Amino acid sequence: MALRRGFRHVVALAGGVGGAKLVEGLAKCLPDGALTVIGNTGDDFRHYGLHVSPDLDTVMYTLAGIAHPVNGWGIADDTRHMLSMLARYGEETWFGLGDHDLATNILRTHWLAQGMPLSAVTARLCQRLGVTTCLLPMTDDLLATVVYTVEYGRLAFQEYFVRHRWQPTVQRLVYEGAEAAQPAAGVLEALETAEAIIICPSNPLLSIEPILQVRAIREAIKARRAPCLAVSPIIEGAALKGPTVKIMRELGLRADVAGVSSYYGDLIDALVVDEADREVDIQQRRFVTNIRMMNSADRVRLAEEVLLMIGDLA
Amino acid sequence: MALRRGFRHVVALAGGVGGAKLVEGLAKCLPDGALTVIGNTGDDFRHYGLHVSPDLDTVMYTLAGIAHPVNGWGIADDTRHMLSMLARYGEETWFGLGDHDLATNILRTHWLAQGMPLSAVTARLCQRLGVTTCLLPMTDDLLATVVYTVEYGRLAFQEYFVRHRWQPTVQRLVYEGAEAAQPAAGVLEALETAEAIIICPSNPLLSIEPILQVRAIREAIKARRAPCLAVSPIIEGAALKGPTVKIMRELGLRADVAGVSSYYGDLIDALVVDEADREVDIQQRRFVTNIRMMNSADRVRLAEEVLLMIGDLA
Repeated sequence: MALRRGFRHVVALAGGVGGAKLVEGLAKCLPDGALTVIGNTGDDFRHYGLHVSPDLDTVMYTLAGIAHPVNGWGIADDTRHMLSMLARYGEETWFGLGDHDLATNILRTHWLAQGMPLSAVTARLCQRLGVTTCLLPMTDDLLATVVYTVEYGRLAFQEYFVRHRWQPTVQRLVYEGAEAAQPAAGVLEALETAEAIIICPSNPLLSIEPILQVRAIREAIKARRAPCLAVSPIIEGAALKGPTVKIMRELGLRADVAGVSSYYGDLIDALVVDEADREVDIQQRRFVTNIRMMNSADRVRLAEEVLLMIGDLA
Repeated sequence: MALRRGFRHVVALAGGVGGAKLVEGLAKCLPDGALTVIGNTGDDFRHYGLHVSPDLDTVMYTLAGIAHPVNGWGIADDTRHMLSMLARYGEETWFGLGDHDLATNILRTHWLAQGMPLSAVTARLCQRLGVTTCLLPMTDDLLATVVYTVEYGRLAFQEYFVRHRWQPTVQRLVYEGAEAAQPAAGVLEALETAEAIIICPSNPLLSIEPILQVRAIREAIKARRAPCLAVSPIIEGAALKGPTVKIMRELGLRADVAGVSSYYGDLIDALVVDEADREVDIQQRRFVTNIRMMNSADRVRLAEEVLLMIGDLA
């Protein structure tokens, strides 16, 4: 409880499922209102006219306690009846929109069409679900991660990730719209007033880099006074989830904890690695612990340890 | 079977559930491709950004054999999971969008947003569901039935009909957009080449009048060479379904078969009334039969009788 009182404001950068796990732990360790999450919207896309924000929703559903316990994304016990009817119409069903999940996407699309920025939409959705953590999209502008692949050429992110199950070989990632994208309202203020910045164990290239591609966000982190610490999404050269290692290899990066370390470089002051990686050479200060989050208790434990490490850094 | 071969092209004007029943019967009695239905879009509205066309969908689902057997509208065995999540978000749930039904509305909204006119959208939806009857919206333009009520003032149609369960007292009906609305592609051609025009047992003011408010449609029916026959939606001063009698009374019209007769006036050559109304005085030629459609066999029986009556008129 000393820890909880110790921080008044912590910022976490998070992608989808992996990031949401640590976010949940942090939300439980910190006082109400002390956590701001900056979420990735590089995965956002329009699907049958609906504005889908997969990473924001994963964080929101996790914090609301309604996330699917196995998948990590989507809503627990959701059904897919709309999708089955879409199939009857001969339409595409590769993107698994659940019926409950649809309500989120319909509301978001409706409110955006009314002129609300995504940040305000996200705040309202969170508030309605009783989520007290502040969840901010990195930007209210369009910034789309686009994947150039050997097999299919240019793929929109969800086509690469969901439709082709991240199997195509990545040649190049492009973050379209990055030049013009401004941080969403509240993002810079959060970074500037944070006592600590935590980069969650999300895919550095697919989940964190789109956030950093908003120039003002990267600059704010570079100019930080507070410590910035990342938790590795890789253990012993294997990704905790998804294509992290595969993509890093395909792009010619070292695909292990050392690769993560050089990827973030001086953006972070410390990297939290698993016990299995205690010997790997990294550029920043190293913290070692068990970074696997297999259940809710693990999430809280790791979050508490991370907050302790930050206390150690400061 | 003589009958089926007897007609090459019949046009039916239909609203929702009542009209769809006779349409189903006609579709079963006529050769493939011989029936064109002109559907009412005065009930259409945007709900959470989705373009909902309740009457078109009722006809389409009925013809596709997937309509809800008890309600008449919506899809059989549909669920309401999206709606339950919308409720969790604290949003309005008075309009009962089923999960399967949502697929139709999402596709319609998506295709409209891509620039397809409603008539092309409707044709595509029908084709995908295997509906071979030609279903045309009366117009691709906006023509919205608006209800002025004693209790609430101006109500959008679905607010009056669904939200307030047609209980408010109607002072006036306004068909907004009627002056500018043009018939959808194919509508005038269908009316001009029809061998018979049938006005289904739908609410004259809420379902048929919006169609007739498209000036060119009313003029085409007035200028018809083919016989036009209506089936009464009222038996012994009671509506077969919904607020027909209630509204006619509230608007100071005679609310029985004679009222229907004078409402349509010289737009029709004959009125089909129930045996119970065989003595009521009407302006047009009278045909008498059992006009209740309690099951699928009734729909075919009444349709066959109506086609026989038309043969008699011609």
